Formats: sequence, C-alpha cells, structure tokens
Amino acid sequence: LTGSFKFRGAFNKLSKLSRQQMDKGVVAFSSGNHAQGVACAAKLLNIKATIVMPSDAPRIKIDNTKSYGAEVVTYERKDGNRVAIAEAIVSETGGELIPPYNDPDIIAGQGTVGLELAGQAADKNADLDYVLAPCSGGGLVSGCALAIHETSPTTKIYSVEPAGFDDTARSLDLGERVEIDVNQQSICDALLLETPGDITFAVNKMLLTGGLVIDDDQVRNAMRVAFQEFKIVLEPSGAIALAAVLNNAIPVKGCTVAVVCTGGNVDTGAFRSSLMEV
Amino acid sequence: LTGSFKFRGAFNKLSKLSRQQMDKGVVAFSSGNHAQGVACAAKLLNIKATIVMPSDAPRIKIDNTKSYGAEVVTYERKDGNRVAIAEAIVSETGGELIPPYNDPDIIAGQGTVGLELAGQAADKNADLDYVLAPCSGGGLVSGCALAIHETSPTTKIYSVEPAGFDDTARSLDLGERVEIDVNQQSICDALLLETPGDITFAVNKMLLTGGLVIDDDQVRNAMRVAFQEFKIVLEPSGAIALAAVLNNAIPVKGCTVAVVCTGGNVDTGAFRSSLMEV
Repeated sequence: LTGSFKFRGAFNKLSKLSRQQMDKGVVAFSSGNHAQGVACAAKLLNIKATIVMPSDAPRIKIDNTKSYGAEVVTYERKDGNRVAIAEAIVSETGGELIPPYNDPDIIAGQGTVGLELAGQAADKNADLDYVLAPCSGGGLVSGCALAIHETSPTTKIYSVEPAGFDDTARSLDLGERVEIDVNQQSICDALLLETPGDITFAVNKMLLTGGLVIDDDQVRNAMRVAFQEFKIVLEPSGAIALAAVLNNAIPVKGCTVAVVCTGGNVDTGAFRSSLMEV
Repeated sequence: LTGSFKFRGAFNKLSKLSRQQMDKGVVAFSSGNHAQGVACAAKLLNIKATIVMPSDAPRIKIDNTKSYGAEVVTYERKDGNRVAIAEAIVSETGGELIPPYNDPDIIAGQGTVGLELAGQAADKNADLDYVLAPCSGGGLVSGCALAIHETSPTTKIYSVEPAGFDDTARSLDLGERVEIDVNQQSICDALLLETPGDITFAVNKMLLTGGLVIDDDQVRNAMRVAFQEFKIVLEPSGAIALAAVLNNAIPVKGCTVAVVCTGGNVDTGAFRSSLMEV
C-alpha cells in the first residue's frame, strides 16, 4: 500500500485521533512517502489531508499523494520553510499535524515491519545476527529495533544513511544528537535530514549497534541488484540497506542478515538511468 | 529461485530420477526459464545438465543458466531443430530428457503455484471468481487448474497467450489440439509455441473456461503497471495475465481475481524500453 512502509505509522496515528480531531483534518510535511502514507490513511478514515511537499519531490510521489484525494502544497526545499507552512495551515484549520517520525504512535506503526521480520525469521528457524534498515528521522529503524530486541536481544541492528546526511551515524558515535551541515546532494530523496528526532534517537541510542553510511553509486548498484536478482523495484532510499550489505559495510559472511528494503516510488526516468550501467 | 516458476516442475521431476539416471545427466531444450529451472535443480541435486537454447534467448536467461553450471548449446530458432539436437545429446550420453511441460511430474510441480494461490485466498477468506495464468505449453495453467479445482470447483480459470501464438485458445474453442501457422513475432519469448501438449491439453480441456489472447502493447503496459503500482519486475511473458485483466479481456468488475505473474528474467535494455512510454 502506497509503495513504502510509511502507511503503517500514519494509519496507526490517524486511527487513534478522536472523531472531533478527525473532522478538522490532518496536515503533514514530507518529501513523499510519508505524504502518501498520511494521504492514503486519511482517505480510508474519511479525513481531509493537506500535505506540504518539496517542489522537487519525485513526480510519482506528488501524483500518488494527490490520487488519494489529499491537497498538496509545495515549497522550495532550499528555503526549508516546510515546518512554518505546515504550522500556518494547522493554526488556520485546527487540523492535527502528523509528524513523520518523532512520535510514539508513528514509531509503533513502522515497527510492525520489525514484527513481521521477526515472525518470518522464526518461521524459518533463523536466528538473526544482523538487521539493517534505512534511516532518515529514525522512525523505521527505531520501531524495528524495539520489535526485534524484544524477542532477539542479541541481534545487532544498524541504521543506514546516505553520505552527507549521516546525522544518526554521527549522533550514535557521539552519544548525543548532532546536526550536520548539508554540503552535498544525494539521490536518496527520502533520507535527506540534518538531525535525528529526540524520541527516535533515544530509542536508537539504546538499541542500535551503529550507523552505516553509503554513497549514491553504491545505492544505484543495489537498485540494479534488486532488479536483476530479486525482481523488485526499489527507489534509492529503499535500496540503501541492501547497498550496505553488498558493499560489506559490516562483516556478514556466514551470518544471517535481514535487510529492510522498503520504498519503490521512483520515477521511471530515474529508474531507467539507474539500470543504465549494467 | 531462478526468477520464474519453472524451478518447481524441474525440481519435482529431477528429484524423482533414480541415482543411476542422475549419474547420466539431464538434457532440456528451452527458451530460457525452463533452462534455468532445470539447471538450478540439477545443481542442487548434483546432476550434470545440458541445455539447448535458442541463440536469440534473452542474454540474462543464457547467463543465468550457465551460472548454475549447466552446459548451454545454442541453436537458431527459425531452424526449429531443438528437439533433434536435444535427442542427439540424449542418445550420446544416455541422459534423461526433461520435458518443459508435457509431463505429470512437471505439471504437479508447476501446480504448487495454484496450491499457494488457493492457500493465500483461503487465508483472506476470499472466494476466487477467476484465476488467469500465462500459457505456452500449458504446464503452469493445467497444474494451477488441478490444484484450484480441487478446493474451488466454481472458480473460472483462463489461459492467456500472446497474439499469433494462441494455440491453446484455439484448441479450447475447437475441443481438440490444433497447430497454428506462425506468421508474426511477440516480445513474450517464453510463450512462442505452435501447439499444446497432449497431457496438458487433456487437463486444460477439462478444467479451463477458455483461452485469452493479448498483444505486445498490452503486455508492455502491464509491465509498466507492475513496475509503478506493484513494484515488481516482470518479463513480458510474466505480465501477460495481468495484461488480460487490465484490458478487460473478461468482465472482472466486482469479482475476486487471482492473476499469476511469474517470470522476471528480462534484459535491462528491454525493460528500460518497456518503461519508455510512461
């Protein structure tokens, strides 16, 4: 549903709103996958959704968000005023702002990925040595960590971020949240964040073994491997944990490794380009 | 495994050979997916495999077949001498010829697709109105029909073939096997056959509601829909049953439909082209 994991957290959050809150609508800002998750959950629950998106978000993400009946308001990513725009809409409509990651209900929703993963491993009698998941604000990886740590406390769990946006990796190294200076770009449009959430980081600091960092060429290669070997379509951000394994970012030989590959909302032109170098 | 359903039948067949037969090796002719299925099953069972493939088979299928350690012998598709080549190898080596579809063990193996499908429907408390599956020699659709008819006798089951290679559709219409004159091409490289198998057709005549026929443009569109909506990579032959539903080849509105999408071994160039017209 919606081509990424984001529906999980969004539906969990929205379904807990009071009917009175629902009637005032919901507001979210997102580069695209949270946007679609909130829009789709809102449609199913009959809630009006207004989504603030960067104007350079992949076309497919903007189109899909609109297809669920949400109102889309765009902003220029470099101005960075998405929070202000969203807050203005909230104060005007009285709607509920749905955070993309830094929220217990969102984390719990994304954590169902970890629950399913633990269940699948149990079905195969597999003890997981490693779990790797993409990381932006940290909602997915913290939710997965909570779910997996419960039944498999010795599993080592890593976040994976794009080079230049390694705020979680650096924060984990230092033991406290840092904000990075952004001075490069990445094709991982869903993972372009400067600092971890305080709630997600509190969980990640406790439960993650470390943070891995991957560059765009490695991500493109992982997209090709997913296409050729697994017959699945991954957007760049969705392929980054697979890229970490393919590039031996951790020593996985002889180990049982689970890799979270989620997010397939990639424009056809970008996908075609990523296959170019095969 | 091997990017298509063909491993199922091949492994079932090969695992039933005597050790004496296994020691003499196996031989198969195939445009590519049966080749990979036999090669992979043979590797797992420690059997030497020789595979006769058309020289114009997708590169990915030839490379993958070799990657399992099989010996690949190529022939010119227009000469149509694949059977003679395979039989010459058999008489020289004493190896066992593994038929691509017209064999009870092969049909039973492919039928596990139908078993899984019936199981998945039962898990969702869904009564299947229709099941559609790609059809070349008819092993997959006949196996699925046997599996599904057992538990759901009112489900209507259809074969789907490419235009110009509609031997099963015509045979079902006439009630007897016909051989078609081939006078066109199709991108569905795994479904280019002139006449149904006698065993597969005996099953299909009994259990199928009819045969549907789809053209290449409809197939390309289905590949794009699979990419964009379902995030899966389908080769042309694997997308043909989805194409039938998307083109309203049967009236599915309000019905519960299962579509067998299997086969993802498509060269990157061909896949890029199929996404071109989005």
